[in-house]
Parts: sequence; C-alpha cells; structure tokens
Amino acid sequence: MSAAYDQFLTCVKEIHDLGTAMGLLEWDQEVFMPPRGVAGRARQRASLAALVHDKTVDPALGDLIDTLQDAKLDGFAAANVREMKRLRDRAVRLPRELVAELARCGSLSQQAWVAAREKDDWQGFAPHLARLTDLKRQEAEAVGYEEEPYNALLDEYEPGARASQLMVLFTELRQGLVPMLEAVRNAPNPPSDTLFKGSFTAGDQDQLGRRVLTAMGFDFEAGRLDISAHPFTQGLGPEDVRITTRYHEEDLASGLYANLHEGGHALYEMGLPLDHAGEPAGQSVSLGIHESQSRLWENLVGRSEAFMDWLAPLLREIWPTRFAALEPAELYRAANTVRPSLVRIEADEVTYNLHIILRMEIERALVAGDVDVAGLPTLWREKVREYLDLEVPTDREGVLQDIHWAFGLFGYFPTYALGNLYASTFFAAAGRDLPDLEQQLGQGQLLPLLAWLRTTIHGRGSLLPASELCRDVTGDDLRCEPFLAHLRRKLNRIYNLDI
Amino acid sequence: MSAAYDQFLTCVKEIHDLGTAMGLLEWDQEVFMPPRGVAGRARQRASLAALVHDKTVDPALGDLIDTLQDAKLDGFAAANVREMKRLRDRAVRLPRELVAELARCGSLSQQAWVAAREKDDWQGFAPHLARLTDLKRQEAEAVGYEEEPYNALLDEYEPGARASQLMVLFTELRQGLVPMLEAVRNAPNPPSDTLFKGSFTAGDQDQLGRRVLTAMGFDFEAGRLDISAHPFTQGLGPEDVRITTRYHEEDLASGLYANLHEGGHALYEMGLPLDHAGEPAGQSVSLGIHESQSRLWENLVGRSEAFMDWLAPLLREIWPTRFAALEPAELYRAANTVRPSLVRIEADEVTYNLHIILRMEIERALVAGDVDVAGLPTLWREKVREYLDLEVPTDREGVLQDIHWAFGLFGYFPTYALGNLYASTFFAAAGRDLPDLEQQLGQGQLLPLLAWLRTTIHGRGSLLPASELCRDVTGDDLRCEPFLAHLRRKLNRIYNLDI
Repeated sequence: MSAAYDQFLTCVKEIHDLGTAMGLLEWDQEVFMPPRGVAGRARQRASLAALVHDKTVDPALGDLIDTLQDAKLDGFAAANVREMKRLRDRAVRLPRELVAELARCGSLSQQAWVAAREKDDWQGFAPHLARLTDLKRQEAEAVGYEEEPYNALLDEYEPGARASQLMVLFTELRQGLVPMLEAVRNAPNPPSDTLFKGSFTAGDQDQLGRRVLTAMGFDFEAGRLDISAHPFTQGLGPEDVRITTRYHEEDLASGLYANLHEGGHALYEMGLPLDHAGEPAGQSVSLGIHESQSRLWENLVGRSEAFMDWLAPLLREIWPTRFAALEPAELYRAANTVRPSLVRIEADEVTYNLHIILRMEIERALVAGDVDVAGLPTLWREKVREYLDLEVPTDREGVLQDIHWAFGLFGYFPTYALGNLYASTFFAAAGRDLPDLEQQLGQGQLLPLLAWLRTTIHGRGSLLPASELCRDVTGDDLRCEPFLAHLRRKLNRIYNLDI
Repeated sequence: MSAAYDQFLTCVKEIHDLGTAMGLLEWDQEVFMPPRGVAGRARQRASLAALVHDKTVDPALGDLIDTLQDAKLDGFAAANVREMKRLRDRAVRLPRELVAELARCGSLSQQAWVAAREKDDWQGFAPHLARLTDLKRQEAEAVGYEEEPYNALLDEYEPGARASQLMVLFTELRQGLVPMLEAVRNAPNPPSDTLFKGSFTAGDQDQLGRRVLTAMGFDFEAGRLDISAHPFTQGLGPEDVRITTRYHEEDLASGLYANLHEGGHALYEMGLPLDHAGEPAGQSVSLGIHESQSRLWENLVGRSEAFMDWLAPLLREIWPTRFAALEPAELYRAANTVRPSLVRIEADEVTYNLHIILRMEIERALVAGDVDVAGLPTLWREKVREYLDLEVPTDREGVLQDIHWAFGLFGYFPTYALGNLYASTFFAAAGRDLPDLEQQLGQGQLLPLLAWLRTTIHGRGSLLPASELCRDVTGDDLRCEPFLAHLRRKLNRIYNLDI
C-alpha cells in the first residue's frame, strides 16, 4: 500500500509543480512582464494548462486512486485521495482542447479587458467575453451539473455549493441588509471618510503597509509585496506567497485595506501545512474559506474599534503633521462609513454583498442563456439602480470594472459573499476561544489571533470540506446571523441607531 | 506531410513552453523569489525538467522526426527537424531520474554557493559540487562521447565542439596573449581606470544604463532590466527578454559594461525570428555565438575609441560636476586598462581569456577524474600563479567566484572564449559591410550595426550551425587572428607599443 501511495504522491506533486509554474506565469504577467510578452505568455499558459490536464487524466493516476480508495487511509492521506479524485473526476470530463483554449483565450481576454476598461470601450471587450462565455458553457456541459449549468462552474471554486442554496442564504442576507442601508441613509450626523483623503506618498503608504503586514505575522522571508493594477495573492507554496497592492496618493484607506485584505489571504497560504506542500489536501479548502481569511483581517480586525487604538498612533508616527491630533474614535468612524457606491472593491461592509449578489444574478443568467453578452451593460445598470439606487455613468464603473469575467471566472463572485459570512462566524468563534482578543487587537498583538487561525483553519489544509470545517470550528452551519449581528452592533454604535 | 509537420510543431512548441516556464522559475529565483522559497523552487524546477525530458523522449515525437527526415524539407522546417533530432538524441540517452536530480541538486547547490561565497566557506560548498560532479560524470557516460567525457558536456552548449580542437585554438590564443601581457607590463605611462572610481548612485547608473541600452535598440516594451547578484540574460521569447545587472556605487565601469554585455545578449534574443518563436531553429545557435553578441557590444563597440565620442558627453550630462572636463581620449584609455586581476568578470580583454583557459583546464581535469573536488582550491591557486602571476588570497576570489559549477555547468566556460573570437571576426565583417560604422558609433547611431546583426545572425535563428554561420558571415573559419589583431591595434595605440 505504501508503494502505491508514494507513487500517487509523486504524480500529484508533479501536477502541483506544473500548477505552481502556471501561478508564477500569471503573477509575473500582472506584475513584471513587459507588455509585448502577452502573446508568448498566452501560449505558455495554454501549454501548461494542457499538460496539467494530461497528467490529471492519466489512467495510471486513476488506477492509483481506485487502489487507494479501497485502502484504509486516514488523515491527510485519505483527504489527498478524496481531493485528487474530485479534481480528476472533473478533469476527465473536459476535452484537452477546451482546457488549452480556455487558458489561451483567458490570457488574451485579460489583456483586452485592461485596454477596454482604460478606454471605457465595452465593444472592444465584448467579443472576448462572448467567446469565453461560449467556452465556459461548453465546460459546464462537459462537466455535467444538477439543476443548472452555472452549478458546474461554481463547483470549481466552492466544491459542493449549489446556486439555488446560495440564493436562499443570499436572499436572507439581502433582506437583512436593505433595512440597514435604509436606516443609515436617514441617520443624522453620519460619519465621513474625508479623514483618509489628502496626499499620501506611495513610499509612506508602503511603510504603513509593511508595518501592518509584519504585525499580522506576514513573513517577508517567505513572501513579497509588489504593485499591480489590481491587488491579488499568489501562493506558490507556504514559503513563497506573493501579494500585490496599489497606492492611490489621494486616498489612504484604499491601499491600507487592500494590504490587510491580501495579507489575510497570504497568512492562509503561509499557514498551510508545510509537510503536505504540493499535496491536494495541503491546499486551501475553497475560495469562500480563502475569502473569509482576507475579510476577517480587513474588516473584523482592520475596521474594529479596538484595532484603531493601535492604528491611530501608527498613522500619527508616519504622518505627524497630518494626523497630529488623530483619535482612534475618529478613525473608527471614518473606516466604517457606509455609502452606496459604484465600485465593488471600494464598497463598505453593508453594500459590498449587494455588489456580489447582483454579479451572481447576472452571470447565472448569462451562463443559462437568459441574457446575452450584448445585454450586460443595460442589465448591470438596472441592477445597480435597483440594489444601490445609483446611476452608472460609464461601463468602466459598471460592467467593465472587474477582471473576473475576463479570465472566464464565472461562479467566482459568490465566494466573496460566502467569505464575508464565514469571516464573521469564525471571528465570533475566535472571540469565544480568546478572551483577551479585543485587548490584544488594541495593542497590535495580532499573533495570538493568527495562532488560533493556524490551528483551527490554516494548518488543516483541506482535511475537511468547507461546510464541515465551519461546523468543526464554530459548532454551527454557515448562517447569515453572525454577520448581520456584527453589522448591527457596529451601525448602532457609529450611526447611533437601534436596529 | 504538412500534417506530420504541424503535429511535430505542436509537440516541440509544447516542450519549448515548458522550457520557458523553467526559464521564468530560474529568472525569478535570482531576482525576486523570497529566500525561503528555495526548497519549493528546487522541486518545481526538477518536476519541469523531468516533464521536458518525458516530452522530448516521447516515441511519438521520434516517429515524427523519422518521417520528416525522409521528406524533402528545407529552410526553417529542415533546421527544426535537425535541431530537434539533435536535442532528442541526447535526451533519450539520459535517465529521467538523472535529469530531475540534476535540476534539483543544481537549484540547492546554487543557494549553497551563494552562502559559501559570502562567508568564504569552501567546505560548505564542496559537498554540493562533489555531488554535481558525480551527476555530470553520469550524464557524460549516459550521453556518450568521443575522446573524453568532457566532450559530452561541452556539446550541450557548443554543438559539435571538441575539447582537443578547442585547446589547439586556445593554445594559439594564449601564445598570442602572453607576449602582449608582457609588453603591457613593461610599458611606461600606462593608462589607469581611476576615472571610473568614485561615488556614483545606483539611480544615476541606472539612468546611464537605460540610455545606453535604448541607443543599442533594446526594446523596453519587450524586455526588462532588473538587479540581481550576478548579471544574466533570460530570453523567454523575442518579445520578453530580461536582463539583470548590479551597480557598485564606487565603480562606474562595472555596471556600465555589464549593461552593454547583457544588452548584447538581449538584442540577440529580441532579434530571433518571431515567426519561428518556440521552434528549435528559432533559437540561438550556440553559447559561443550568443557570447559573441554580448562581447561585441561590450568590447568591440563599448570599449572602442569611436564610441567614446558619444559616451563622454553622456557621462558629462549625468555627472556634470565629476566629469566637467571629461575627454573621449581619457575615457578610451581608462576603459582599456590592462591589468591581471583575480576576478574573471572584471577582467580586461587581454587577460579575460586566460581566466577562461584555466577554468576549462580545471573542469576538464575534474570531469576526467584527474583531480577531485578537494583539490580544486590548490589547483586554482597554481593556475592563477602560472597564468596571471597573482596570489589568490581567499577562495571567494578564487575557486568560489563563479556560479557556473554550482549549477553543474561544466563545459560552459570555453564558450566565453569562443565568444571573444567570434565577436572580433563578426565585427571585422561588419566593418567591411558598413563603411560608415566607426562614424556612426561616434554619434551613438548604433542601429545600423544592430540591423546588420539582425540580418546576418539574429534573424536566422539556428538555420546554420555555428561553424557554418561563421563561414557564411565572415567568409572564413573561426580563427584567433582577428581577435589578436584587434588587441594589438588597441594596445599599440594606448600603451604606445609596436607589437
């Protein structure tokens, strides 16, 4: 048995290494690749995607999995076989040509999206999106699904999730958020985020970012922080985790919270079990769980009242003139200003999930064929009017704002809302296990929280599927209530409400 | 036939894309990888090396090559089949485990070398080198050879070369160089390079480097310039070519000539035929030819009397105080100071090849088993005393100075001396074809020379093997005389000699 398992590990680690090489090709394309490299890069990514596919569908690997399923494995060994079987079962249904074509078109489409967004040129992007939509529908049909094709795509990012079930959760969420937004709109003396506006050099912001990341436990010997158009995290293994950010000189909050967010993702990747690096069960559980880590640090820690006791002096130190008289209470109010806006990544905690729900509804309709690509800009405007009561002046601030669809990532957005729900649930559990948590956050002692996350979540890789992990850590299924309760407490305090 | 050739192209381009991904993994390791990423990176590189091997030895590819050899192909198609057959014939003799182990050990050994060199700790590196030597001997035995195992390794970098033939050429070279060195040693009023010593910020040096590279025709939309411990060039395709450099604040020449050198390599990679990107014949011919391009720009252009007419005003512009009264003639003398020194990469044109010859003699003896790893520091000292009349105070300035052996690159050094010989031969031919060349160099008009190199060398990829290319471009076989004549002219002028 040991021999079969060793052989299995050799195969899966080789597949993982190819995937990591693809990860580096992707990271490099966003961060350092010279512009004219795009055509070659598209071909390289397509070739590697096809090779990953070949290795995954190799019948010899299938035989090994069959053999090992009959064996009495447990722990990581059992989880490795379970996870690899899941990945392989999906891959064997996909034609190799489709896999390579998706990688190739995704790479080209991404570049087209960058240009189209810059020029607010929906027509320049639409043909790429139409091609990708067609390919993703083919993928869904090839993979197979229950209820609707969208589920086949969703399953790649959130194994086991179903759109209909998510919509039950998200409808409850929306019903909780709408009255909050109404109450906030009518509140007298609302907070303002002007405190974050001004002139902050990228160098100073970078210093702040590195101080915050270091306090969080981000290991710069095992990771990097770079600049890219859109912040993201690329984990190439627990000892090589890269995050990117961008600094807007006129707005301090944007870069600060991007760093907290990506830092949260990075801590998850750095905390994955090193002994199982390169193994399927040594990876993160799902994108929803991944996003729970970024949102936990960004919002539950980074926008908490306690954290401001540590953050305010730090801002005073870096910008002594501008923040000479800065009080934590002001910072807390400014960082929690609620105001419907057009751009998801700048959205506050209340409206953020409405951005997600509208995207999920649109992409679900697109995949089902209920709307075509040409109809997206109008549908986007209608939904934004309905959910956020705003007019979308340009596609750049509308349907072109996110990169996800340009990569063919349909079914990815819902994991962001799941992340918000998981984050609150996990943070409530951390509060029960760590009685001094609030006091520690106030002193910038963030490592006890990190240690808790390492034990309960990071270090376990994908030993447990997301839903089981949630029950194990929190004692309950995923529900909206911890998130809504967190928001109610905050809004009551800041907006002087009683909801 | 077309169908078989298309299938062949698909296979070889996939192999090439894997190789390019490895190239990015290597570049990243030198430039941006966080330190703790080394173990994961070693594994990734080993996996990809093994996959390249698998794809290369695939019997289906062998069948395609056999079929295409019987067809009447010409031009790039014929060269592609010839080159791929050459690569495959070598690969099929190598056990897959050896390939992966070489990649893995090379990656670890490289990291050990960095630490050992920093601490002047030969003992910390020796076990790694012993392991690599053993693996490379295994490689030579597996590949097979004529005359001696070293030839099997040399052939990877300079196809068709034989150590015994090279030694005939290099002996003639050495016999030409020794009296020059003697004459220079005894010359009154020698030039000095103190002009380049002082305090030059990295930022200013970078500005100079980018100005020079731009004048050479380096396309920053299709390439990058970064910092690494050791300058190198990584071509990921004609539209993505990356060079690295380093700036010593106390020495202007070091970074300037590194940029000219790597810029020369980069222009070759950028000029390879884009229509044949990813094809075997779309790549560079050999390392000797590659080095001819770097040395041509570094020495034949960058240290020429004419070039100083353009360089001197540029230095005056960037450092107006320091170089207020700088004259081209002073610069010419300073840049051509001949003085035996311990470090190859800082060596002048006369002594450089002596550094190469001693390395080749040592590695040839090592591969043959005539010396073992433990004996290298002593042998190094003896050779340096014999060839350069210098004492080696530390291994750091001796046997530990170069990274090549740490990667297992035995048989690589001779290509540097070949590069010097090819460079002079090509440059003499360029001078015949471009009557205004000298005047153009004096005005910083470097693009006509680049255009000539593109037509005669770069754009032809590996259509012709190195020796045939040399005959085609210069009308003659590779000889020492053009290089020795170039040196004699220069030394007579600068040292006021008559040799």
